[in-house]
Amino acid sequence: MSVFVQDHYPDDFAYCYGCGRLNTAGYHIKTTWESNEAVARFTPGPEHVSVPGFVYGGLIASLVDCHAMATAAAAVERQEGRGIGERPAPRFVTGALHVDYLKPTPLGPELDLRATAKTISARKVVVEVRVHADGVLTARGEVVAVRMPDSMGAR
Amino acid sequence: MSVFVQDHYPDDFAYCYGCGRLNTAGYHIKTTWESNEAVARFTPGPEHVSVPGFVYGGLIASLVDCHAMATAAAAVERQEGRGIGERPAPRFVTGALHVDYLKPTPLGPELDLRATAKTISARKVVVEVRVHADGVLTARGEVVAVRMPDSMGAR
Repeated sequence: MSVFVQDHYPDDFAYCYGCGRLNTAGYHIKTTWESNEAVARFTPGPEHVSVPGFVYGGLIASLVDCHAMATAAAAVERQEGRGIGERPAPRFVTGALHVDYLKPTPLGPELDLRATAKTISARKVVVEVRVHADGVLTARGEVVAVRMPDSMGAR
Repeated sequence: MSVFVQDHYPDDFAYCYGCGRLNTAGYHIKTTWESNEAVARFTPGPEHVSVPGFVYGGLIASLVDCHAMATAAAAVERQEGRGIGERPAPRFVTGALHVDYLKPTPLGPELDLRATAKTISARKVVVEVRVHADGVLTARGEVVAVRMPDSMGAR
C-alpha cells in the first residue's frame, strides 16, 4: 500500500497540477508521515528560477499549498484512527495561503517540506509548513484547508 | 517602447519562471498600467487544473506574486515621475505572499488581475491584487515586495 496521501485521492480529484498523480504535466508532490510531521520532498528544475541561483517563489507557494492540503487530509485520518490509504483521502481545497520568504531558497538542492496541522475542525484545518534547503529554513507557510464544498464536486 | 514592466527588467533578472521574458518554459506574465491600476491577463492551460473545471491555486499564487512585484516596480517609477521603460525596472523580490481564495476560479476564461500599491517606502511596497474570471472576483492577494537585497545580485 502506498504511503503517499496523493496516491489515495479519488481519481476525479487526481489531476491537480501540483500533486495529481494523473496530471502528466504537473509537479507530482507527494506527502507522507515521518513521525509527527508530514513530509514532502521536491527538487526544482533549472526552469524554476526566480533570479539566477534561486528558486521561484511561485513554485514554493505551490509546494506549500499542495503539501498542506495533503497534510490536512492525513491529519484528519490520523485523528479518526486511520493511516494513509485505508480509505480514499478526504479532499481539501485552499481557503487561504500565506508564505513568508525568510531568505532566498537556493536552486539546486532537493527541498524538504515539513508540515503540521495546528488546528482541526469539522470544516477546516490550519496547517503550518516549513521549507528547508540544505538544512536551512528558507520559507514558512500557513494554509487554511477547507473541506471541499459540494459546488466543486465533493464526493 | 514596450509598455510592459517585465520587458524592462535587466537581462540577468529576466529568467523568472513566472514573468521572465527569457525563460522559455515559464508563464511570461506581463504587467502594464490601465489608469491607476496595474493589470495583467493570463489564460491558464488545461494542465493548470486543481479539481476538474477549476484553476490550480498554486498558479493563482504565482500570477499574484509576479504581478505584484511588477506593480511595485511600476509604482515606484510612477512616484518618481517616470513611465514604464524609461529606465530598467527596479527589481523587487517577494517578502510575504498572502492569497485568499474567495471562490473557485473557473478554468477556461482569461484571468484578469488588477493591482494597486497600498504603501510605498524606501525598502518595500505592499501590493493588493484582485483576480477576476468572467468579471467575478475569485481571489484576493496581498504581497510584500522588498527591494532586491545585494545578496541576490542587485544591480
